[in-house]
Amino acid sequence: MEQKANIEVCLSPLLFSLLKKEAKVVVVIDILRATSTICTALFNGAQYVIPVETTEECLKYKGEGILLAAERNGQIAEGFEHGNSPLEYTPETIKDNVLVLTTTNGTKCLRMAEGADHILVGSFLNLNAVVQKLKELNQDVILFCAGWKDQFNLEDTLFAGAVVDMLKYDFTFDNDAAFAARQLYVNTDEHLMEVVKFSSHYQRLSKHGVTKDIEYCLSTNVMSIVPFLDKDMKIKIS
Amino acid sequence: MEQKANIEVCLSPLLFSLLKKEAKVVVVIDILRATSTICTALFNGAQYVIPVETTEECLKYKGEGILLAAERNGQIAEGFEHGNSPLEYTPETIKDNVLVLTTTNGTKCLRMAEGADHILVGSFLNLNAVVQKLKELNQDVILFCAGWKDQFNLEDTLFAGAVVDMLKYDFTFDNDAAFAARQLYVNTDEHLMEVVKFSSHYQRLSKHGVTKDIEYCLSTNVMSIVPFLDKDMKIKIS
Repeated sequence: MEQKANIEVCLSPLLFSLLKKEAKVVVVIDILRATSTICTALFNGAQYVIPVETTEECLKYKGEGILLAAERNGQIAEGFEHGNSPLEYTPETIKDNVLVLTTTNGTKCLRMAEGADHILVGSFLNLNAVVQKLKELNQDVILFCAGWKDQFNLEDTLFAGAVVDMLKYDFTFDNDAAFAARQLYVNTDEHLMEVVKFSSHYQRLSKHGVTKDIEYCLSTNVMSIVPFLDKDMKIKIS
Repeated sequence: MEQKANIEVCLSPLLFSLLKKEAKVVVVIDILRATSTICTALFNGAQYVIPVETTEECLKYKGEGILLAAERNGQIAEGFEHGNSPLEYTPETIKDNVLVLTTTNGTKCLRMAEGADHILVGSFLNLNAVVQKLKELNQDVILFCAGWKDQFNLEDTLFAGAVVDMLKYDFTFDNDAAFAARQLYVNTDEHLMEVVKFSSHYQRLSKHGVTKDIEYCLSTNVMSIVPFLDKDMKIKIS
């Protein structure tokens, strides 16, 4: 019998160093909203996305055809015109342009994953496409939940659980975090929006009037792209 | 309306520093097996338990009426006669004696909790008693899961979820980890042993032939004591 590849789930950036990323596929997950935004920008025609850690680093990229976007604490950072709302990045805004993005959680995780064989960008928007890609690659996987300021969060864990559930026959998942994430997802079932309404990040974001963003970020399989981070630290779809 | 006290759940020692422990009650949870062992030793008549971090520190306590116990990687540490099995600490062995204990996960967390208003020892064995004590104290609570080598684990999280579920009308719990722990517990319901059999620590311990320990550690409400860590770093029941 052929040995199956394994899935691990990392519930917080603080726990990522406990896992070996080498020779693995890392899927970075920041449902509200960085990875949903990156998927949307690329789906709507962005050339590529550059994830950066600081607003200073972001500003260095100033130039024609480049959109500088920064989010801190759920809002557009001071001095920036663009933030972390996926709904900002319509084809009219982003087509053929480059997006340079820094966010509170997700972009940091993309940089932390450096050294893995493949670094993919996961969101409910491209759930099926990510699952298919993981089957094709057939390598050990880390589902890396960005969380909120290093804390566990519900929406990223639910996405990780969805992936584990969809790959349960093709991969092993012998770690407690993967088991728990899958249980949470399976018991949530069709009520994703209702459960996420309990989450602390929903409470935080809804104060900023972005419930439309959240509804959008929880819509499933609206695009079949799988963004990946290349060696030049650019996120592309091909 | 009176403001309710709040419950937070900490899923790994690496996440503990994200929370403020001051003016709170911290319940340390290491179901397999440190906190179950501490409860059992005190229930069976130990004078007190001293949790220490290293085997060297443990050996310093050598003396009459003092049992030195050390566990590493699920087994009795080299050079020690006693380990981390609750079933070792029968009244015949432990009554009126002092237990000095170092384990892979749980004893470290007891020391990390220093500075909290109250530090309690929780296990399924004394679940109801812990819940009653938290109601009496009516202060903000951190349910501190010891995990396994800083990783998330299932059995500690399930216990935290049980406490959250039992206190859901008396406390608020507005953090995602508490919500998730409770969901996991509620969906597990009567099948605790079956679910814990999936856990990585069960797999690890069962290789060492301690399935009897595990069954014992998952038995609920067999004692009504609430061990606490006092200012002299001794764990007592009164």
